[in-house]
Formats: sequence, C-alpha cells, structure tokens
Amino acid sequence: MHASQCPDGGGPPGAWDVLVIGGGPIGLVTAWRAAQRGLRTALADPSPGGGAARVAAGMLAPVTELHYGEEALLALNLASARRFPAFTAELEEASGRDTGYRACGTLAVALDSDDRAHLSELHQLQLRCGLEATWLSGRECRRLEPMLAPGVRGGLRVDGDHQTDPRRLTQALLTAGERAGVELLRQRAVRLLTAGGRATGAQLADGTRVSAGQTVLAAGSHSGTLAGVPEEVLPPVRPVKGQLLRLRVPGPYRPFLSRTVRAVVRGTPVYLVPRENGELVVGATTEELGFDTTVTAGGVYQLLRDAHELVPGVTELPLVETCAGLRPGSPDNAPLLGPTALPGLHLATGHHRNGVLLTPLTGEVLAELLTGGRVPDEAIPFSPARFTPALQEQSL
Amino acid sequence: MHASQCPDGGGPPGAWDVLVIGGGPIGLVTAWRAAQRGLRTALADPSPGGGAARVAAGMLAPVTELHYGEEALLALNLASARRFPAFTAELEEASGRDTGYRACGTLAVALDSDDRAHLSELHQLQLRCGLEATWLSGRECRRLEPMLAPGVRGGLRVDGDHQTDPRRLTQALLTAGERAGVELLRQRAVRLLTAGGRATGAQLADGTRVSAGQTVLAAGSHSGTLAGVPEEVLPPVRPVKGQLLRLRVPGPYRPFLSRTVRAVVRGTPVYLVPRENGELVVGATTEELGFDTTVTAGGVYQLLRDAHELVPGVTELPLVETCAGLRPGSPDNAPLLGPTALPGLHLATGHHRNGVLLTPLTGEVLAELLTGGRVPDEAIPFSPARFTPALQEQSL
Repeated sequence: MHASQCPDGGGPPGAWDVLVIGGGPIGLVTAWRAAQRGLRTALADPSPGGGAARVAAGMLAPVTELHYGEEALLALNLASARRFPAFTAELEEASGRDTGYRACGTLAVALDSDDRAHLSELHQLQLRCGLEATWLSGRECRRLEPMLAPGVRGGLRVDGDHQTDPRRLTQALLTAGERAGVELLRQRAVRLLTAGGRATGAQLADGTRVSAGQTVLAAGSHSGTLAGVPEEVLPPVRPVKGQLLRLRVPGPYRPFLSRTVRAVVRGTPVYLVPRENGELVVGATTEELGFDTTVTAGGVYQLLRDAHELVPGVTELPLVETCAGLRPGSPDNAPLLGPTALPGLHLATGHHRNGVLLTPLTGEVLAELLTGGRVPDEAIPFSPARFTPALQEQSL
Repeated sequence: MHASQCPDGGGPPGAWDVLVIGGGPIGLVTAWRAAQRGLRTALADPSPGGGAARVAAGMLAPVTELHYGEEALLALNLASARRFPAFTAELEEASGRDTGYRACGTLAVALDSDDRAHLSELHQLQLRCGLEATWLSGRECRRLEPMLAPGVRGGLRVDGDHQTDPRRLTQALLTAGERAGVELLRQRAVRLLTAGGRATGAQLADGTRVSAGQTVLAAGSHSGTLAGVPEEVLPPVRPVKGQLLRLRVPGPYRPFLSRTVRAVVRGTPVYLVPRENGELVVGATTEELGFDTTVTAGGVYQLLRDAHELVPGVTELPLVETCAGLRPGSPDNAPLLGPTALPGLHLATGHHRNGVLLTPLTGEVLAELLTGGRVPDEAIPFSPARFTPALQEQSL
C-alpha cells in the first residue's frame, strides 16, 4: 500500500489514488492513462487481458456500424477512431509491442436485392452524416476482393474503417501500464467498499481490502453484478454473447482478403477480418443467454454457413480456434462513461460492440475525470447520469 | 534387450521375439496377444494410443457399413463384431479399465425419396446376406429417436451394430499390454532392418537398432512409407483423412439420442454416435489429401450442416472438439493381415474404416501367425499376398 495521492483528498492514508476494477482494454487503458497523470493506480483482475477482448475481432468501424438514431454514438466512435493512429503509435512506443493496427478499410457487400436495398439506405444515412463511403457494383466489389462470392450484388467501400488486434492491444496496454507504474492485483474484486457515503475501494477474492480515493468500475459484462454497489448506481449492463472463429490463411492463399469484408446474410451480420499475420477472424453471433460462454454447434455452423456464402473459398482454410465472449451490453448500446451518484465511483463500461474502438477515447475521458479535468465533448452524452434521472440534473 | 525367445529361431541373440511397429489399437492388440502367448514383445511408437483412434468414432457396424461386392469383408467384420463382447470383458478385466463398449444398436435413416430407395436396396442386400435389419417408417424412426428431423422418410433399425470408445479402448490395450509384459519403446521406428533376406527388426528415431525375430508392421496410414521395406513388400496403404466433431449433451438434454444415428446427406455419409458419458461424436469427412490432418472450415461446416439436417437440435449442443485423423486406406478397403514375401515381416494394416471393429480379430490372427498357429478362416482372404501375385501362389 502506498500513501494517498488522491487529488480530491478523499482517500484514507495508505490508499491508492485510483483502483480500476477490470483488466480488459477499457480497464487497462484507464489505469495506464491514470498512472501517466501521476496517480498511484492499481488494477484488479484475476487474468488481465483475458476477457472479451480475447474474442473480439477488433474492427474499428464507426462508418459501417452506423445505425439509425445513434448519431451521438457515431460522434463518439468517430472521435475515438480519429485518435487510433496516434494512440497506436504512442502505445507501441510505450510498450515496445506491436498491436496489429491495420489501416485496411472495409467492404460491406450485399448478397441479394433486399440486402442491396438496406445497404443503399445505410449509404444515404452515411452521406447525410458526412461520412465517406463509396457505392460499388458487384463487379467492382469482386475486382477489389476476388474471393467474394459471384452473387455479390453491390457494396460499400469504406476506406476509413480499419482494424486492430485486440489480443495484442491488451498485451501492449498491460506492458505500458506496468511500465507507467500500474500495480496489477491479480485477483477478482468481489465487493465495492463504501464508507461515509462514498466508494473507498474494493475487497478482493482473498479477502484483501484495497483502499482507493477513486474507484473505476470497468468490469465489462460483469459490471452490473459487483456486490456492494448501491442498487441505484449499479450500471444497467448485461452480457451479450458472441461466438467467433479464427481461420488461418496458408501462404499460397494469401492475401485471400485484403480488407475487412462484411455482409448481412439472412438477417444476420457476418464479417471476415484478415490480419497481417495470416489470421482470418470470422464473427460473430449475438446471443442473449446470460453468462454463458459455451461454443455451440449452432453458433459455429451459422458463422461457417454465412462466411461460406459470402466468401466460398473459406472452406479451404484451416479452422484454428472457436471461442465465445461476452460483450457488455447497455440499454442504448452505448457506453457509460463518468461519475456515478456515489462519490468516488466512476464507470467505464457498457461498450457493447465498441470496446476496442473506444479504447483511446475512454482512456482520455477517464483520465480527465480522475484528475478533475474536462472531458471531450463527444463523451458528455454518455454519462451514467442518463440512466439515473436524479443525477441527470447535476452537471457532469 | 532380452535373450531371443523367437519360436522360429530366426532372431540373433539379444533380440526380441516380436517387434510391433505402431501403437494404435491394431499394434497394441497384436503386442498384447503376442505377450499373452509368451513371446517377448516390444512395441515402437512415439505416443502409443495417439494416432487415428483418437479421432475415430468407434462404430462397430458391419451391417450398416455393408457395401456391394464386399461380402468377404463382411464375413471378417462380422467375425470380429461377434468377438467384441467377450473381448471387451477380457480386456477390461486385464486392464482394470472401462472401454465404453455400448450395445446400443444403430438406426440408418433416409431424408428424401432417393435416400429411401438406396436404403431399401441396402436392406435387400442385408437380407440376402442373412443379416438382421428391420425396415421402419419415418414415424417409427422418430418414435425411437424423437430428436430426428421431421422430414425423415424411413430407416433401417440394426440392433446388432454397436459402438466402443476408441480412446478408452486404446488406453485399456496399453495397460493390458504393459501388464502382460509388452515393452513400450516410445520412439518412432524409422527403418526396417533386414539381413540375410529376412526382416530383423527396426531402427528407431534415436538411432537405436531393435532386433526381433519377427516384426509386425502396424503403423496405420504410415505403413506404406517405412524406409527399408523392399518395394515389392511395401503395403499399398494410403492416408484417407477424416474430420470429426465432439459435442457434449448437457444433462437436461439427455439422452438426446439413444443409439447411433446415421444417414447419407447429399451423397455424403454422416453419423452421430452418443456415448454413455454424454459425448456425441459427429463424423466424418473422407478426403484424399495425403498426410494432412488440418481441421478445415469446410470439413467442420459439412459435418455441422449434415448433422443439423439429420438432427436439428444438435445446434443447441456445446461443440467441444474438432479433430482430424488418417485412416489407413487400401486398394480394396480391406486390411492386410499376414506374412509378406520378406520372411520375418508381417502386416497388420490397411484397416481403413474398420480398425476399431477389427481389433479383436486382428489380435487373434496375428497371435496365431506369430506362433505358427492357424488363422481364423475369415482372415485368409486378407493376406497381403493378394497384392503380390508372386507370393499369392504360396500358401498362407
């Protein structure tokens, strides 16, 4: 334990300035950024880097993932996507590790006339939002990506939607955090500690009580279940299961695909993300089954069937891994970033499909919050206050 | 090294009576039976029990696997199937291990009218061969196995086609062999040794030369590639790749299936083998790709698609494992059992799809051959001599 350096003076002697609960990319970036600001920071996770990010595909796709009515989220996603190149450079420098960032662009295609109509509507929405996306004929799509199915009827070329490798990203964040002085407590936080109407840290699985001036709950899909968090503060986060496959593109088949390729097949999205190292990620199911991370015959079947319809040649590729993870879903599919009604407790959770994309911006937002600074404008709508009317009247 | 106990006196001093090359069920049963007969026996394999049997489903299905023109093979398969209950009892007693033998029967079903016509022809052939098989309507099939697809058009109930668990079988054979005195040489045999016009043992990967009065080549799909075997004696065995899935039936879904269920879907056979322990094996592809044991997206896709068509509820089950193995194929799909033109070298290979089924009979045949006894009549047509006309004129 270290002497308190808590900027608001709220921590008892012997406390950390900041305790981050959760070692996914969101918790790791928060801890790294906090430590960079001079805060004495600890992070609790039984296996940092081992959560949903191990399963995630790492698409950085604010444009192709645009949905009606989510313009505020679009602004947030774009703000983080803009930061990705500089963020990657800084992180790779700080950690000495490659993160697999690849400015490869994305091609979203339509396999039938219904899909084409939907994709065309998405294109109109993108243009209204001022985004760059180019409509291509089926022939033009196949010229870009010759492995595409002959039946592709058209597509959207989005050169700004890139990718990173979430497994390498979390490893780099782990190293950068440790180098910046983050203390990793390799245990699960089992209970939030409170005293005098404020959060004061957390109790770990072995019974250790970790005191901290400020606590950040960044436990992904588990954020809604931490004991000791007052009911009215508990984030409305639920697990949304995703199953995903990893194929390998053997040398003679490369590049196979040169950018992310995605489509909606029979109403279900499927995407193929080709990494520089020859890995080809195929994702992902979306299932509301609680805390279930079972890989099922049906999940794998759906992914293979849809990927095969989109890129028939995938059947030739080795299937290297099947896995399932839990996205932290929120009621409006957007994250909860900011203070709660319980002083000393911040949230950085509920990122749903966008956790990897939002890593740079989340780190910045939380660092500002933890040091009493000013959060970027784009993040203001995503205060947890939007789900707690009483708090909503206070300013962020 | 031990003093020679070789019954034909052919081994030099310091030699084993018998060296078995290959530690799959065929090699293991040969070694066990040889040791039981008092022969000093060694078996060379880098990881005994680790070959194709780890992938095999373990169907004991001479009746449902009957093919036109393979009546001699049918007699061999039936002879081994008849031995399975007593063999299992003896092996489980000798090893103290359960082998997962299950007298569950098999149901072969038709999913469309073409399939039904083919299945009906198979039924006529079975009846002509004096086999027991009962024709059932689609409704009767679903009464037996309620998880079957509603579209099932009819089926054949074969109560005599059972199953065993090849992984447990090989473990039991390993234990029984060691208890009977088989020496396991945990290395690959890289070259057959010959001297004075006869086989005299083998050289191992580390250079050790193992001398033996008689050598049995039981190396499965690798049997056709052992260095040092004269060209005219090398068995015409090739690898036939099979991919296979293991699902798990969670408690609430059991029994799910109560017997082996199989069908031909779009010309491709698929089978589901339910184990007592809740494992459900789905197999298998048949691919001629040389020594390739890659699990591919296409193989897994085909198995899941066909299993789903046969038993739609499989999609709910956890997918636990995907694997691929190499069957030892032979020109007539039948094994090579017996002496070669090279004195001192016997073959026990080329079992193709029937290695597990033929384990009991192969053990008996090889034990007789190694001790100068009389092989069972059913095995006589399967001498390697049938592929070497010069030898064919000699008696077995």
